Amino acid sequence: MSDEFSTKGAYTTMGEEFTRDTAYITDRITKDARPVGPGIQTWPVEAGRYRLVVSRACPWANRTTIVRRLLGLEDAISMAVCGPTHDVRSWTFDKDPEGRDPVLGYERLQDAYFARFQDYPKGITVPAIVDIPTKAVVTNDFPWITLDFSTEWTEFHRDGAPDLYPEHLRDEMESVMKLIYTEINNGVYRCGFAGSQDAYDKAYDRLFNALDKISHRLETRRYLMGDTITEADVRLFTTLARFDAVYHGHFKCNRQKLSEMPVLWAYARDVFQTPGFGDTTDFVDIKRHYYEVHEDINPTKIVPKGPNFANWFTPHHREEMGGSPFGDGTAPGPVREPLEPGHSIEELIVAQSA
Amino acid sequence: MSDEFSTKGAYTTMGEEFTRDTAYITDRITKDARPVGPGIQTWPVEAGRYRLVVSRACPWANRTTIVRRLLGLEDAISMAVCGPTHDVRSWTFDKDPEGRDPVLGYERLQDAYFARFQDYPKGITVPAIVDIPTKAVVTNDFPWITLDFSTEWTEFHRDGAPDLYPEHLRDEMESVMKLIYTEINNGVYRCGFAGSQDAYDKAYDRLFNALDKISHRLETRRYLMGDTITEADVRLFTTLARFDAVYHGHFKCNRQKLSEMPVLWAYARDVFQTPGFGDTTDFVDIKRHYYEVHEDINPTKIVPKGPNFANWFTPHHREEMGGSPFGDGTAPGPVREPLEPGHSIEELIVAQSA
Repeated sequence: MSDEFSTKGAYTTMGEEFTRDTAYITDRITKDARPVGPGIQTWPVEAGRYRLVVSRACPWANRTTIVRRLLGLEDAISMAVCGPTHDVRSWTFDKDPEGRDPVLGYERLQDAYFARFQDYPKGITVPAIVDIPTKAVVTNDFPWITLDFSTEWTEFHRDGAPDLYPEHLRDEMESVMKLIYTEINNGVYRCGFAGSQDAYDKAYDRLFNALDKISHRLETRRYLMGDTITEADVRLFTTLARFDAVYHGHFKCNRQKLSEMPVLWAYARDVFQTPGFGDTTDFVDIKRHYYEVHEDINPTKIVPKGPNFANWFTPHHREEMGGSPFGDGTAPGPVREPLEPGHSIEELIVAQSA
Repeated sequence: MSDEFSTKGAYTTMGEEFTRDTAYITDRITKDARPVGPGIQTWPVEAGRYRLVVSRACPWANRTTIVRRLLGLEDAISMAVCGPTHDVRSWTFDKDPEGRDPVLGYERLQDAYFARFQDYPKGITVPAIVDIPTKAVVTNDFPWITLDFSTEWTEFHRDGAPDLYPEHLRDEMESVMKLIYTEINNGVYRCGFAGSQDAYDKAYDRLFNALDKISHRLETRRYLMGDTITEADVRLFTTLARFDAVYHGHFKCNRQKLSEMPVLWAYARDVFQTPGFGDTTDFVDIKRHYYEVHEDINPTKIVPKGPNFANWFTPHHREEMGGSPFGDGTAPGPVREPLEPGHSIEELIVAQSA
């Protein structure tokens, strides 16, 4: 989701700094549709009622695929996967037979937006949650989608689901996640979509200052909040996973590659090798999305062949710091919706790196 | 010199492979203007008569700045340095006071071409050698310029000048230099200016296959031809020096950075740290040229801040292989025409990498 994962056409405005359009559809899905605040419409948690629409390319959507799998919500919330690219009109279901989502019957995600708001004026973004009975979009407010998975959908969590948003850590998590969002998740876009040299230069410094700060934090903590994985790690991971694949070259975030930042690189591999993370990361879709869609910064639409991703599987030694990724919980089982049926993530990456 | 260091405007032709226009002005400067072959006009070697025109950004021009310095030809052949960028008409002398070369009096290199050929139809390229009395271009045929510096200008070589083109090695050098030119020097452009995904994919494989081959050769040889530096090393170096700065990101040569290819990286640092190489390499001009001039692949013209170049000064340990960079000769003295007066290359790079 978010501005640049919406369908706009142009991403860079010459002479201007990149600013994200964050006016989302603020509806939320809560237990028995309990109210959560003024102006926010709520929908009831109900297994089988909603369809999560993602693109594997998108880091904001990737948050939802990770958390849904970690919590074991696959049976309660079904998922539609759009292709990696979109035109100015919409993300499309071009991966599905006949280019149509079999549950919603749509070719284009925009139809779910139009079913709710006839003249929806903004970009069509992923992730989105669609109400299956009415085929209308419920929400695209991505920061709440994963938190609500953790706190509102508890009835449908699998046995051993980890607590990704522990109550006693929430205050500290807010400030860590704010830094991650403004400086890192959004920071890479601020570099890549800068409309002037000055805006880019400032964006680059902000990004790498924040990465240095987070790297320092991770010198003494196995995960961002300590011994176990939380929502904060999910949010950091989806940007790190795309760093060498696209942000380093395409967005000019090139002080170093992630693989040249030792602490962050070991941390990223530790998380990647944990069930739920690497197995929801599709480097092929990621590269295709950024390089093919952002024509104003890559007019040839040529997708680089490199880098080789096999290095994500090298030993990271972070387990020597102790801790346990899922705390009192357990790892999720085998992937239910593999990136390519019949192939593990290891096999895919070896094949892609030939 | 060469097509893409000429002034054209567009560098990529959609759907097409990049092919270099190699029809240069084939004149050569030889001892007493001795004839060298049919159709090739010769001019006499004569100290003070010619002006070498370069841009520090250009790898083909960089060959001439290295060889001129190694051989001590600074007094015999003066040098004009164009700025890193050019418009569709010409390279310009924008680094000089009032934007005019003090010897030729020109603002634009194209005037030297027009003084020789009134309707010169092709791109204006560097390196070029200009006859000072007539202010007309003599040649832009870069492969011969450096070889003629080595073999025709011997009368004006400094004491201790190395033999960069030893007779007994020339046959082997031809095949090594052909590989370097077609697969590496030109290979990076074939990636960067590819007009289709298929052309790019093939170009990428060709480039990295050749780099692997050259890397293998350098496992057992300190320099390409053995124990001492030759013209072949000059030709390889100018591409390696630009690899992480521009080819890795801007030209999508991203299987690895040079700094991730251990043998080539140690070799490149060994050469870079040798007088004549690093001290003629201007990373600021290099980055500005590629990112600002190739608008069809970088429409925003934004120049990346990274990478940090301080790693070029780290120990390479190649001296443990034996050999001696200049054979029976000696290293050149202090830089006569520094990149920035009063600053060493080390100081510049530290300042640029802040």
